Amino acid sequence: MSEFGERIVPGFASSFEGEHLVSERSEFQQIEIYQNASFGRMLVLDGLIQTTERDEFIYHEMLVHVPLLSLETPRSVLIIGGGDGGTLRRVLEHPVERAVMVEIDRRVTDLCKEWMPSIAGSAFEDPRAEVMFGDGIVFVKETGETFDAIFIDSSDPVGPGEGLFTTEFYEAASKRLNPRGMLAAQSGSPAFQQGELHRTYSHARSVFQNTQEYLCLVPTYPGAIWSIVVAGDRFTIDSKVAEQRARDRKLDVRYWTPAIQRGAFDLPAFVHDVIAPDGPPHTWGPSPAEDERTEIPRG
Amino acid sequence: MSEFGERIVPGFASSFEGEHLVSERSEFQQIEIYQNASFGRMLVLDGLIQTTERDEFIYHEMLVHVPLLSLETPRSVLIIGGGDGGTLRRVLEHPVERAVMVEIDRRVTDLCKEWMPSIAGSAFEDPRAEVMFGDGIVFVKETGETFDAIFIDSSDPVGPGEGLFTTEFYEAASKRLNPRGMLAAQSGSPAFQQGELHRTYSHARSVFQNTQEYLCLVPTYPGAIWSIVVAGDRFTIDSKVAEQRARDRKLDVRYWTPAIQRGAFDLPAFVHDVIAPDGPPHTWGPSPAEDERTEIPRG
Repeated sequence: MSEFGERIVPGFASSFEGEHLVSERSEFQQIEIYQNASFGRMLVLDGLIQTTERDEFIYHEMLVHVPLLSLETPRSVLIIGGGDGGTLRRVLEHPVERAVMVEIDRRVTDLCKEWMPSIAGSAFEDPRAEVMFGDGIVFVKETGETFDAIFIDSSDPVGPGEGLFTTEFYEAASKRLNPRGMLAAQSGSPAFQQGELHRTYSHARSVFQNTQEYLCLVPTYPGAIWSIVVAGDRFTIDSKVAEQRARDRKLDVRYWTPAIQRGAFDLPAFVHDVIAPDGPPHTWGPSPAEDERTEIPRG
Repeated sequence: MSEFGERIVPGFASSFEGEHLVSERSEFQQIEIYQNASFGRMLVLDGLIQTTERDEFIYHEMLVHVPLLSLETPRSVLIIGGGDGGTLRRVLEHPVERAVMVEIDRRVTDLCKEWMPSIAGSAFEDPRAEVMFGDGIVFVKETGETFDAIFIDSSDPVGPGEGLFTTEFYEAASKRLNPRGMLAAQSGSPAFQQGELHRTYSHARSVFQNTQEYLCLVPTYPGAIWSIVVAGDRFTIDSKVAEQRARDRKLDVRYWTPAIQRGAFDLPAFVHDVIAPDGPPHTWGPSPAEDERTEIPRG
């Protein structure tokens, strides 16, 4: 049995044990997969927990369904990252004609297919899916294609994911969106990564006409409260419309409900402060160390 | 520097470090207070984290303000537990005439006053507060007084708090409520204590005409998603009414907003399943071990 976990902020860590199934250094990062008694298989990249078999549904449903249910006919979708296939699977529950996924690290996808196949289900075999391995930033700059939705399903803005959180990237992505298209990206913990959330939201707001932030709850992420930014020039998110569409599209949901979607945009008072133009105010939490989340050294 | 934390479910623990300021065995429980780099002073009872200086505001605002803002004239309030004074402080922000607090362990209050005075603020000195040390269950059975609201601000249903989660206790408490009175109690983690949440909700529903569940987010609690049950025979929770009253009462809030209150009652799909009469369904999370949260043994 191995011990692993994350140093979340100074003096606070999560700690897991599990059977160490995979330990591999890829071209891009250190990849680990563990078998945990409570969460099933867990994917850990560079020491940070990315997804688990038991709670992946929360993040993936909220990342994908909220934007796609606001589109009447989402035809083409681009996913940057998302190597485990969970985002792709939810995208394909919608009536899309084409879902392009650009993952930087082929080994993540290969190992997830082998060890955590329940997350992608049959998504990788779907004829509407086109999976490429390469740099999503380069793809977005070079492709001539446009999409109805772009999902940034990346690790944090350190390591391979860094360039996906910049104004420059959002500008390039905005040119690849159809007129009513939307971009959605994870934007970190509103409790423990306030600087990251503030910057991600500010960068999106500087590029798009309409930028909104919503929350979901992932028990295995540090602090469990997770934020997602959704941005575009013309879109309306309406939970009544979403309810009807979810029924029409026969979505298989375990976290998402119309009311949860509506409530997800109602931010706690301190989160409003974090995304305010002059935020974050550092009135809560460990501000000086907010971006220092790192792997716990283990003996 | 000492290490402490909770085993949340098998294979998953939270891990903190801090300067160990207080370690005392009271008549009822083991009391520890630590100084943590990120959360300030932390109160730990029998190995379980109860509150921290940095995030106490979330739980206390949500426990107290949601019920009291639904009452036009909350005059008398009973608090069972709440030794740190955070609940009392929020109660006294409302125009109550009398707030009775019955804490079982005088040492918890004494030590919180000494080491974590910011949590109670000046609440213990407020002439409207009457603080007693004794068994809340006995008090509720024996008092002839009735209240507009009763808050159960206890530790989990193991140890001293056990009897506060039973149908018998809710029946006794219901007799001490005024006609439009409300009881509110923490009901555990919807992710990791599904059995506890199911039972608490079911017990309340068997006694009261109107039982509702809502959620708040406490980063230092296991899984961070925390549930609160509110019950009574005749009450209406309306976020528009609450908004006006919060303004009239000049509440000092950092988490609560009218929209947060509204959204807090919108439960994720899996939480609806947990509180359903035939729940919890064990479709998520580590069902067999859900009630086994225990202290991590440390070397």
